[in-house]
Amino acid sequence: METKKVVIALGGNALEEKGKPSTAESQLSVVKKTAEKLAKISAAGFEIAIVHGNGPQVGRILLASETAHNVTPKMPFDVCGAMSQGYIGYHIQQAMKAALNREGRGDIPVVSLVTQVVVDEKDDAFQNPTKPIGIFYSKEEAEKLEQESGYVMKEDAGRGYRRVVPSPKPKEIVEFETLKRLWDSTIVILCGGGGVPVIKRPDGILEGVAAVIDKDLAAGLVAQSIGADVLMILTEVERVSIHFRQPDQQDLPEMTIAEAEKYMDEEEFAPGSMLPKVQAAVEFVKSKEGRVAVITSLDKALEALEGKAGTKVVSGK
Amino acid sequence: METKKVVIALGGNALEEKGKPSTAESQLSVVKKTAEKLAKISAAGFEIAIVHGNGPQVGRILLASETAHNVTPKMPFDVCGAMSQGYIGYHIQQAMKAALNREGRGDIPVVSLVTQVVVDEKDDAFQNPTKPIGIFYSKEEAEKLEQESGYVMKEDAGRGYRRVVPSPKPKEIVEFETLKRLWDSTIVILCGGGGVPVIKRPDGILEGVAAVIDKDLAAGLVAQSIGADVLMILTEVERVSIHFRQPDQQDLPEMTIAEAEKYMDEEEFAPGSMLPKVQAAVEFVKSKEGRVAVITSLDKALEALEGKAGTKVVSGK
Repeated sequence: METKKVVIALGGNALEEKGKPSTAESQLSVVKKTAEKLAKISAAGFEIAIVHGNGPQVGRILLASETAHNVTPKMPFDVCGAMSQGYIGYHIQQAMKAALNREGRGDIPVVSLVTQVVVDEKDDAFQNPTKPIGIFYSKEEAEKLEQESGYVMKEDAGRGYRRVVPSPKPKEIVEFETLKRLWDSTIVILCGGGGVPVIKRPDGILEGVAAVIDKDLAAGLVAQSIGADVLMILTEVERVSIHFRQPDQQDLPEMTIAEAEKYMDEEEFAPGSMLPKVQAAVEFVKSKEGRVAVITSLDKALEALEGKAGTKVVSGK
Repeated sequence: METKKVVIALGGNALEEKGKPSTAESQLSVVKKTAEKLAKISAAGFEIAIVHGNGPQVGRILLASETAHNVTPKMPFDVCGAMSQGYIGYHIQQAMKAALNREGRGDIPVVSLVTQVVVDEKDDAFQNPTKPIGIFYSKEEAEKLEQESGYVMKEDAGRGYRRVVPSPKPKEIVEFETLKRLWDSTIVILCGGGGVPVIKRPDGILEGVAAVIDKDLAAGLVAQSIGADVLMILTEVERVSIHFRQPDQQDLPEMTIAEAEKYMDEEEFAPGSMLPKVQAAVEFVKSKEGRVAVITSLDKALEALEGKAGTKVVSGK
């Protein structure tokens, strides 16, 4: 693969280790290992930008805020998202700088941008909120919140009631101009958690909304907008599989768009897990001739860029 | 004044209104008014960057985190600072964009950078932590925290014990290269809360520390580093006064460095309030011939830049 501009989407396992305490100190130690891998990609000559998830982190920020609401006001969900961008972005930029130093590339600037992403308020997702956030409530508390705060509350697998928010599609990266100006020189971390979702009012004014944007779709939009060669989605497995966890599981080194769409129709990929990754990959590859998406693990990321690992998604024309 | 490049330091009253609830919604409504004023400065032809405080905000983030520590791990103080940059930066960039739109300058990009600022671990401040943060503890709890977490705890005016952290001087803005690349085109929000304080280890690696950097000194460092013409420190009063709140109070339209230093010697300015502003102003004006600092209120900011309001600090040579 002779490509150069790569937008990398980091999954949860690049920020936290399963079974380890969910402290900031623990996150920083995982992020340091992640940064070592990413710095090697940069040192190998690829120009990268980094998009990261924020699921567990924003969940804990919201949890602290909800738990402490008697002593300090509860934070709106869009603000919690912005706070998670500060938190995670700080760790990534600090660790990346250290890792680049060790690669002899300490001259490359690294920065996190607080990023808003426009969503369409007519997006179907707003009619059908599905993403659970925050703590569990009793039925009575849930009804009170529905009435008083206008929250949508749903029963969650017998464990109580949780607030659900929509997961609309990302339409436009508000701070895109900044990415464009920095791309050639700087490793930019942006769209943390998929970006803080905002709607655009008719007069052009932006307003934060309580919603969650899928970070792989956001990374795909970043990649499309900047004209990247590769969208690289990093996750826990080295390759996308069909018949996943069945005796005849088949790991795929390559998928054409047509194959990917067929597999999606056949429900091969788990919603909220591999499905949005394949969707983001297909959408990116479709957006322009020659674009390639790669889904792989952090450990195999550099090899995958060299065509020696991962699942490559190609147009197939 | 024919100056052009202005670094603006926003005080607490640009983000919150006294007596109003300390909610995010309330902050956003104050920030919208602040942004109107700043957009007018930009529309008048000044190139601006924005530094903001975070005292009450980071206090509440820490408070929520400490209050909820039984359900989700406590956040280190450097991370709380990074979170406050996300929170406040998000609001300012959203509000600035809207205000610029109304000025017909919606084409100017606005972005917040997560910013680390290097402090010297040999700074005297580390020997004498003075800045109280977080909640009040009993004597017993305080002693336990000193032993278990290595915190420095101090009795606070009979109200209990609080953790205190050092307030070292800012030495270097880690993300300065990014400011430099964006300055000509973009309104950059950086060094929120004075920046996340980091120390530089002998191998060049950065490490977050629990400390508070004065945001006016940080703004002064930004202004020096970028070669700004004006450091503008916005606060609650229109002008710096001597004999403040005494019958013979005198508001100063202009101060030379020599005068400012004399007043400081005479303890005219309150520590933690006007004193660090005057110190930051003096340091900036001293740094190079022709540089000017202005201390004034948000309402008078544009007039002050036109030489018609505020206190101008000049070299006096």
